[in-house]
Amino acid sequence: MALRARALYDFNSENPGEVSVKENEVLTVYSEQDIEGWFEGTNSKGERGLFPASYVEILRNDAASTLNNNSCSTSGDSRYANVPSGGFDGSYQPPNKVENFPKASPPAFSFSAPPPQPHHGYPQPSQGSDDDWDDDWDDSSTVADEPGTGGGRYHDYEGNGPSTYRVSTSSMARGNAQQAKSSATVSRNLNRFSTFVKSGGEAFVLGEASGFVKDGDKICVVMGQYGPEWQENPYPFTCAIDDPTKQTKFKGMKSYISYKLTPTHTHNPVNRRYKHFDWLYARLVEKFPVISVPHIPEKQATGRFEEDFISKRRKGLIWWMNHMSSHPVLSRCDVFQHFLTCSSMDEKAWKQGKRKAEKDEMVGANFFLTISPPAAPLDFQEVESKIDGFKTFTKRMDDSALQLNATVNEFARKQISGFKKEYQKVGMSFKVLSQAFEMDQQPYSAGLNQAISFTGDAYEAIGEYFAEQPSKDLDPIMDLLALYQGHLANYPDIIHVQKGALTKVKESQKHVEEGKMDRTQAEGINERCNIISCATLAEIQHFHHIRVRDFKAQMQHYLQQQIAFYQKITGKLEEALQKYDNA
Amino acid sequence: MALRARALYDFNSENPGEVSVKENEVLTVYSEQDIEGWFEGTNSKGERGLFPASYVEILRNDAASTLNNNSCSTSGDSRYANVPSGGFDGSYQPPNKVENFPKASPPAFSFSAPPPQPHHGYPQPSQGSDDDWDDDWDDSSTVADEPGTGGGRYHDYEGNGPSTYRVSTSSMARGNAQQAKSSATVSRNLNRFSTFVKSGGEAFVLGEASGFVKDGDKICVVMGQYGPEWQENPYPFTCAIDDPTKQTKFKGMKSYISYKLTPTHTHNPVNRRYKHFDWLYARLVEKFPVISVPHIPEKQATGRFEEDFISKRRKGLIWWMNHMSSHPVLSRCDVFQHFLTCSSMDEKAWKQGKRKAEKDEMVGANFFLTISPPAAPLDFQEVESKIDGFKTFTKRMDDSALQLNATVNEFARKQISGFKKEYQKVGMSFKVLSQAFEMDQQPYSAGLNQAISFTGDAYEAIGEYFAEQPSKDLDPIMDLLALYQGHLANYPDIIHVQKGALTKVKESQKHVEEGKMDRTQAEGINERCNIISCATLAEIQHFHHIRVRDFKAQMQHYLQQQIAFYQKITGKLEEALQKYDNA
Repeated sequence: MALRARALYDFNSENPGEVSVKENEVLTVYSEQDIEGWFEGTNSKGERGLFPASYVEILRNDAASTLNNNSCSTSGDSRYANVPSGGFDGSYQPPNKVENFPKASPPAFSFSAPPPQPHHGYPQPSQGSDDDWDDDWDDSSTVADEPGTGGGRYHDYEGNGPSTYRVSTSSMARGNAQQAKSSATVSRNLNRFSTFVKSGGEAFVLGEASGFVKDGDKICVVMGQYGPEWQENPYPFTCAIDDPTKQTKFKGMKSYISYKLTPTHTHNPVNRRYKHFDWLYARLVEKFPVISVPHIPEKQATGRFEEDFISKRRKGLIWWMNHMSSHPVLSRCDVFQHFLTCSSMDEKAWKQGKRKAEKDEMVGANFFLTISPPAAPLDFQEVESKIDGFKTFTKRMDDSALQLNATVNEFARKQISGFKKEYQKVGMSFKVLSQAFEMDQQPYSAGLNQAISFTGDAYEAIGEYFAEQPSKDLDPIMDLLALYQGHLANYPDIIHVQKGALTKVKESQKHVEEGKMDRTQAEGINERCNIISCATLAEIQHFHHIRVRDFKAQMQHYLQQQIAFYQKITGKLEEALQKYDNA
Repeated sequence: MALRARALYDFNSENPGEVSVKENEVLTVYSEQDIEGWFEGTNSKGERGLFPASYVEILRNDAASTLNNNSCSTSGDSRYANVPSGGFDGSYQPPNKVENFPKASPPAFSFSAPPPQPHHGYPQPSQGSDDDWDDDWDDSSTVADEPGTGGGRYHDYEGNGPSTYRVSTSSMARGNAQQAKSSATVSRNLNRFSTFVKSGGEAFVLGEASGFVKDGDKICVVMGQYGPEWQENPYPFTCAIDDPTKQTKFKGMKSYISYKLTPTHTHNPVNRRYKHFDWLYARLVEKFPVISVPHIPEKQATGRFEEDFISKRRKGLIWWMNHMSSHPVLSRCDVFQHFLTCSSMDEKAWKQGKRKAEKDEMVGANFFLTISPPAAPLDFQEVESKIDGFKTFTKRMDDSALQLNATVNEFARKQISGFKKEYQKVGMSFKVLSQAFEMDQQPYSAGLNQAISFTGDAYEAIGEYFAEQPSKDLDPIMDLLALYQGHLANYPDIIHVQKGALTKVKESQKHVEEGKMDRTQAEGINERCNIISCATLAEIQHFHHIRVRDFKAQMQHYLQQQIAFYQKITGKLEEALQKYDNA
């Protein structure tokens, strides 16, 4: 039962899964029962996530009905149907406003404390029961841009460790903080929405993961020339996405777009819808904690049958598929293979594979069980330095991608509008001159008049060339940047998992020194941190490889297109110049 | 003695030589004595010319001292040192304001009336006495942009004939109007500032010109394929203008720029200053009534030793000289030959030639005496139709030249600023991306990083190419347009002379029919109108020939430069693309 609440103080989200709220903002809270001091709900912008329970007050019906805030989202297309319209009047002054609201120390509790229920109460990635599989949920499932799964811009993950996250001052949290101080040991992270916890990284490091790993599930990290890397897929393939077609069902009541996928290793085309991609994406995100699964192209509420949108989405899916099929781990995993190979006609087989994927036990913490690291363990100091270097790198790359994207976007816009206009104005002026010259009936002027007129046409054509060009060269660059910006948004979480594991190692070492932990237990933590580190570094290595491959290919494509463009202009001008030969 | 006056009514100039004045505008009048109902003076914008005496009132000292108008030009750089500062208060209401001021009928007087003193009281083109020849009057003589010599924008010369020009209502003018009505005959134009009168066209048509024409002075109009044309110069030549140098005299007290001219028919370089060009221009304008002498490049009060200005003026002089030396009549005339061939060292010879040119009797009306028309007289109806067609043509060409000039000017500005900026922003963003990539120390990324960095440099260079390009291709187009806009501004006057002659023919025919004129007199008018028509059509034919030649050459040059430009860009991009081969 959704409730309305009012924020008493500003709260700035610092961790994935949290949302920022402003003092006096009207919020929707999904349950009056807080989860360890946190409420889950939606802020007035429609962002879903956690905020401290003590920062808000629940609005009772009588209070809510007297409040009205125009700044509150009242639009009909709210992603959440249960967000009430209307809101809170900005003139209202909270009676108990406290400046410098005291923040609690980081709470923690010892191993003996009962572990929190994993994922309980947190919005799950699309499970899509078999029953609603045929419903048109193309644009109603919400995984791709779910808060907390890294869908936003690059998060600043500095200080995302347990020492700095903000918690509520609820009595329970304070109680835990007290407890942590009195019994220091390898602590469990209180914030169940920390990626380290959510991903299963913590559970794995602490030795709580268990599952039966089949030989076929084994994922090998090998020591390559530049460090740990994923073992290559021995059967590499690619996958074509053909022009999407509009399909209807229920006698035309429902329409959807179907994409024909043809993997090179089967040559059997299968038809897939956006919702299938979305479902697959959710499975992969859930299953692979330290692998960057690129975002699938954005959803769009309106105009999803418009040609431009379909073409754009298809291009996005091609990029996505290109990444998927060239990733040594993702390309081989069962759920992806099921997606690529199961006939669209055989509904039973599809549902079977779907159910199997949704019940897959080797997800999250258990995924790490499937990893087989190189024989020699890594030097954690070196690992830390590499991870830190990568962190700096991703920040810089993200900044530069953002800048390049803005520049390229503006450059495209200028070419489509300004450049085109300038060239066409020149063309028009030449045309007008030739028309004036035609007033003179001297026969010796006729050739020149025609040549100038042709020159005018040439410049008008060149104006068109400028307007058409961005779709050929700048758009692909923007597509590439979008894919990589998606990756870069994933890395803070991935790094967070590895850093969490490393913290556990350090804590365990300290505890061993203090005689609070036995060596075997610490060695286990070490070994498991090594596995996480190997996987993380292998993924980073893979990222660099595909980055170099993709950017090289795209820059070459861009320059080739640019060269062809200027050659086309030159050709047009040469044609115009020839007209003067006999003038 | 200059006097101040106030305009009582608006007056819009309709003829060259007149200036417009606004009601209440404070004017400077050079003499209280009107010239046939006109005052000569300067309006508040500093424009010099004629306005009707009855439209203004002279301000006596006491009245002037009480008036103060801020909108009056009080800047110190007025071209006329005797324009008093201060002015007229806009709040002042003229006591005798008359709406719909009655305009007098066009006055005229018969042949028996005393002819007006030619040019008396009207500003003369630079004569430059020998005494002041050595003065530094580069930028103080005022021929090139003298009002009434066609220096302004294209004049609308519709209705510029005697039937519509505006005259004053002074008693003298009214008296003449009465006189005209009582003795109708081939009328003399009252407005001594009409081009037809000024040029000597009227005097020639009426048979009043007389002079001794030497054989060497004969100018032949021949019947060519397309109508009358100037006989070709049998000894064609061109003239180089070398890089101007700064010279000093009076021990460095005075500086000037000297241009080295080298005509191909003598190979003897001579040094000439801007004032010499200015003097020559004045001689040619005075001498040739129906020949379009292009304007010399504009004067500039400040910065005349700056490189940009010198280079621009030199280009303008090259265009000017190019036109001069390819004109069959101008290229052969004595004063131009003197200018081109007289040694700059031989001051005596120079002064002799200069004096001779200034005393040349075959100027204005007498110039027509030197013209030898083709044997068969022209059909005046056909001439009129050709002239009208040309009039329409020049209007259209002027409009289109104006538009092209504005477009090209804007296009150049965009390339220098906007285009350059866009390309350089793209270049900069690539550079930033390559710098981010350099954070990754993977050896396999190094080649790509360098290639992207090079691509960034390439786009910065291309931005520079864009900024540099207009001086190579658009500037020459603008120079060409400026030259032709100058020609187009000359043609209204030229056409006016021919039309004036044709009107005289029509009047004489009517008078013959009415028995008021004998046939011999009318035939003389016919013959002389034929000469003016032949010269005008020959000049128009020449204009079309050089127009086709110049625009063809310039368009070819423009396109060649453009092609080279886009090839240069392509080359730079190809260079960048190659960097990826080993990346």
